[in-house]
Amino acid sequence: MRVAIQGVRASFHDQAARALFPGRALELVECASFPLLGRALAAGEADVAVMAIENALAGSILPNYSLLERHDFRILGETYLRIELCLMALPGQATADVHTVLSHPMALIQSEEFLHRELPRARLVEASDTADSARLIHAERLSGHAAVAPRLAADVYGLEVLHAGIETNRLNYTRFLVVGRRDSADVPAGANKASLRFETPHRPGSLVEVLEVFRDCDLNLTKIQSIPIVGKPYQYSFHVDVEWSDPARYREAMARLVGRALRITHFGEYARAERIWD
Amino acid sequence: MRVAIQGVRASFHDQAARALFPGRALELVECASFPLLGRALAAGEADVAVMAIENALAGSILPNYSLLERHDFRILGETYLRIELCLMALPGQATADVHTVLSHPMALIQSEEFLHRELPRARLVEASDTADSARLIHAERLSGHAAVAPRLAADVYGLEVLHAGIETNRLNYTRFLVVGRRDSADVPAGANKASLRFETPHRPGSLVEVLEVFRDCDLNLTKIQSIPIVGKPYQYSFHVDVEWSDPARYREAMARLVGRALRITHFGEYARAERIWD
Repeated sequence: MRVAIQGVRASFHDQAARALFPGRALELVECASFPLLGRALAAGEADVAVMAIENALAGSILPNYSLLERHDFRILGETYLRIELCLMALPGQATADVHTVLSHPMALIQSEEFLHRELPRARLVEASDTADSARLIHAERLSGHAAVAPRLAADVYGLEVLHAGIETNRLNYTRFLVVGRRDSADVPAGANKASLRFETPHRPGSLVEVLEVFRDCDLNLTKIQSIPIVGKPYQYSFHVDVEWSDPARYREAMARLVGRALRITHFGEYARAERIWD
Repeated sequence: MRVAIQGVRASFHDQAARALFPGRALELVECASFPLLGRALAAGEADVAVMAIENALAGSILPNYSLLERHDFRILGETYLRIELCLMALPGQATADVHTVLSHPMALIQSEEFLHRELPRARLVEASDTADSARLIHAERLSGHAAVAPRLAADVYGLEVLHAGIETNRLNYTRFLVVGRRDSADVPAGANKASLRFETPHRPGSLVEVLEVFRDCDLNLTKIQSIPIVGKPYQYSFHVDVEWSDPARYREAMARLVGRALRITHFGEYARAERIWD
């Protein structure tokens, strides 16, 4: 199976793909950005894509919701990954040898306390990707350099982990989606979660009316986020996730939404993943 | 008045501060990061801070909500700023002379289409700040270099704007808050908006009960975002903004929230700003 990911082999996206398709032989399609990932999937260069959609510390990745809409993709599944950062270098190097640390800016920020304490004099260099920093150190035999990257990157690129779990906030996780083209994708059996986008009519309490439908149909609301609509004063779109145990009640709720919610986009129905932070 | 901002003079934060305090002499306290901004305000090194809290393209800046809570700061005001990016260089330089472009990674991403079209061979170099890139070009007389930065940075650092409005998405804006220490801050007269954080009891429909109170008291909900609570399965905290025309109805709603919402944090009551994208 050809899986498009953002970043390179051994990145967090790769790790998510391995968790989502255990035991499957995966042919990774490495994409340098999320828009390129969208184009690769739309063009049929991959069967599915794995795409980060939200992070516990940074929140929703709103541009990726836009990507789903623009390409009319469908969500087929999800997983949660704890973001563990490791400091890694060429074999034989010690922490005291490290004068330069490479990583993605967000990973450098998230390991700032450790780096400040253990490597106060090291130069921090921003790179495009965590795993790619590890790949570079391996490819160019950069002694004195370390990468902040997922543990998997040390295995894949032959580096040694000097320190594991160097992230400041241990409760950091990222949610990843499996995404497919709408034409090629069947709704997975056992779906018990859906992601929707809708707008509400411009009248007081219109959001409450929608959420009352969810409550009355025993749907569990696991996410809600309002997005102002440009050019429509005081009107909003909402991203929501709902879960159910009886699919008939979900269908009933969707029927009752008509007239209460406008411009409903169904991003997909899929099986919910264990939420690892509970 | 001493105003702490993230970034340096002529950054978007500086621009927001000037919009929030027109005609006032401002003594800027430049902070290299949001956590340092929080520390500067808490330590009394500034009278207030101006802090970005959400962006139309990237969504809420969740770590800044945590900053408000950790320091027990109070929101005193808000403003919206359209994010206009300009390409600027030393006077006398032409676009064709530019071989290197400096800016914050987000600004480089947001002007990617323009840079790709007009400067396909230029080297893009990530810097810590948009305005600081302009400052650097001025300070080191870097010919052949351009910065992607706010127009204000060209005025302040003596650069020439080669192209204005180079951002891909013209509908980008950022919301900035004025933030003060709780002890030193009075609720502004004419407050008609509040920002709250609360949790809901672990029972079906508990969010609906809270939103029904807002509706029944004629509060306008202008933002809602759920945040999962680590360690509490299927429990959430919510960030909401509400607006009112009658302050008595707001006080009534807050009284009726007791028992329906848990652990309510009042981030502050303040005068709402014109929403520039409407």
